[in-house]
Amino acid sequence: MSILVVGSVALDSVQTPFGKVENALGGSATYFSVAAGFFAPVNLVAVVGEDFPERHIDFLKKRGIDLKGLKIKSGSTFRWKGKYGYDLSNPKTIYTHLNVFEKFSPKIPPEYERSDIVFLANIDPELQGYVMKQVKKPGLTACDTMNYWITNKKKALLKTLKKVDMFLLNEAEARELTGESNLLKAGKAILSFGPKKIIIKKGEHGVLLFSSHSVFSAPAYLLETINDPTGAGDTFAGGLLGYLRKSGRFSESEIRKGIIYGTIMASYAVEDFSVRKLGNISYSDMQKRYYSYRQLTRY
Amino acid sequence: MSILVVGSVALDSVQTPFGKVENALGGSATYFSVAAGFFAPVNLVAVVGEDFPERHIDFLKKRGIDLKGLKIKSGSTFRWKGKYGYDLSNPKTIYTHLNVFEKFSPKIPPEYERSDIVFLANIDPELQGYVMKQVKKPGLTACDTMNYWITNKKKALLKTLKKVDMFLLNEAEARELTGESNLLKAGKAILSFGPKKIIIKKGEHGVLLFSSHSVFSAPAYLLETINDPTGAGDTFAGGLLGYLRKSGRFSESEIRKGIIYGTIMASYAVEDFSVRKLGNISYSDMQKRYYSYRQLTRY
Repeated sequence: MSILVVGSVALDSVQTPFGKVENALGGSATYFSVAAGFFAPVNLVAVVGEDFPERHIDFLKKRGIDLKGLKIKSGSTFRWKGKYGYDLSNPKTIYTHLNVFEKFSPKIPPEYERSDIVFLANIDPELQGYVMKQVKKPGLTACDTMNYWITNKKKALLKTLKKVDMFLLNEAEARELTGESNLLKAGKAILSFGPKKIIIKKGEHGVLLFSSHSVFSAPAYLLETINDPTGAGDTFAGGLLGYLRKSGRFSESEIRKGIIYGTIMASYAVEDFSVRKLGNISYSDMQKRYYSYRQLTRY
Repeated sequence: MSILVVGSVALDSVQTPFGKVENALGGSATYFSVAAGFFAPVNLVAVVGEDFPERHIDFLKKRGIDLKGLKIKSGSTFRWKGKYGYDLSNPKTIYTHLNVFEKFSPKIPPEYERSDIVFLANIDPELQGYVMKQVKKPGLTACDTMNYWITNKKKALLKTLKKVDMFLLNEAEARELTGESNLLKAGKAILSFGPKKIIIKKGEHGVLLFSSHSVFSAPAYLLETINDPTGAGDTFAGGLLGYLRKSGRFSESEIRKGIIYGTIMASYAVEDFSVRKLGNISYSDMQKRYYSYRQLTRY
């Protein structure tokens, strides 16, 4: 069985102090799928407009991503434009044109209903709940979110959280959701909302995993070059859940190992704009970096 | 043989959003000695004034710290007053009264000349060089510094660095010293200055160790309560070098393990003001936290 991801496929225009791209392939479901595709078959559910370039479709197909669930609607593709400063965090949004994504109502194709792992990328928590109703007993359900939903749809988000096994969010979101600045306290508080595994992403400072009886802290992979952090979180999720699908076991120790694979995939994502670098590395490159990470962290 | 530390013994007045202390026991050599004393005998070289409270002398003696090198001069003890904001970094200095510390010229007692490990805490790099001339072939020499010396005595600092085995500094200092914002590049650049081991301290984000052929990244221990970060870096150094003295081997793998012990000692330092918490834990408490750290990081 495959991994199902529901999220956005977008055309991103991104500027950082180290370069820029216009209308490049982006979106949460894109980054997730490309990363997860290194480990397992991925079924993607998203929507794009008629302007979506054929070459992006070809790229995703060549990565082995099943696109039966990618609807092409009349209108334009979701477009985002953002600009990062030297700290490469908190980009300034120049525009967000939701376009066809505004009316996105994810219909899961019958072939996708039985998925071993389901990833609900950052979309309206009501839509996340709608997807949950359509899938049949997945082995593992994970979801992401963003500050907008915490501020504006907290009730729906909390309802979704009661039904998922794993929740991924960044440190600012964890603080906003709990009103708690200390991340150890915030992580424990979020566990009480339902999910058995909470993953707090700290960007260049790594990742924390909270389970009922333990906490895991993994530093980031060290890089000399970081060009564009866009998509790092979704790429991380793709590496993690891809690894878990390949492993077939969702134990604490496998999730910890998956977090390292997610960290490695995210390290490639930020080295170049869009999915350029992710599209240019092999499974064996990735394995080498995994062993290099072991050298970086073992004692 | 013992560990020799040369640095400051001070009376600190510290305010954080979580409390305050007036004229509490502080100083780089104090924090270092208390931490290193958990593992090995420590010889302390520093200077205080006649106003230095007898109870602090008693406290240090009870920790097994040899005070033959602690000079009591006429005048007042070095006093620092600082105030931290909610981020608990970059305290605002209210005053720095060097007092007897201004004319500190560290004379190493003959009994201390043969020390296995020498730690040159953050003092004028010219004085660090002066100490180096007095000691006889230590197995390991380590030094710390601060932004003031990087800005005002860079030449003397670089001269000291040519003679030490290990150099500890924080991330802002690493960036200032090299003019390089990327820490991976900064660490490698500092290696070329002489020391075979460079340790960059990142506070709540952990520690990096640079060696000629490898980099090690250790996350911080997670805490629910952080009351005062003063002295964390010197406490870290004390835990690290104390462990190395106890181990007797200065290999890469022992240094990595020592970094974890340093991390554990620093975690106790920040939980309370001054050396209060460090003075109230046992070796067995510390070992338990070491194993808890292993659970936090293993995969």
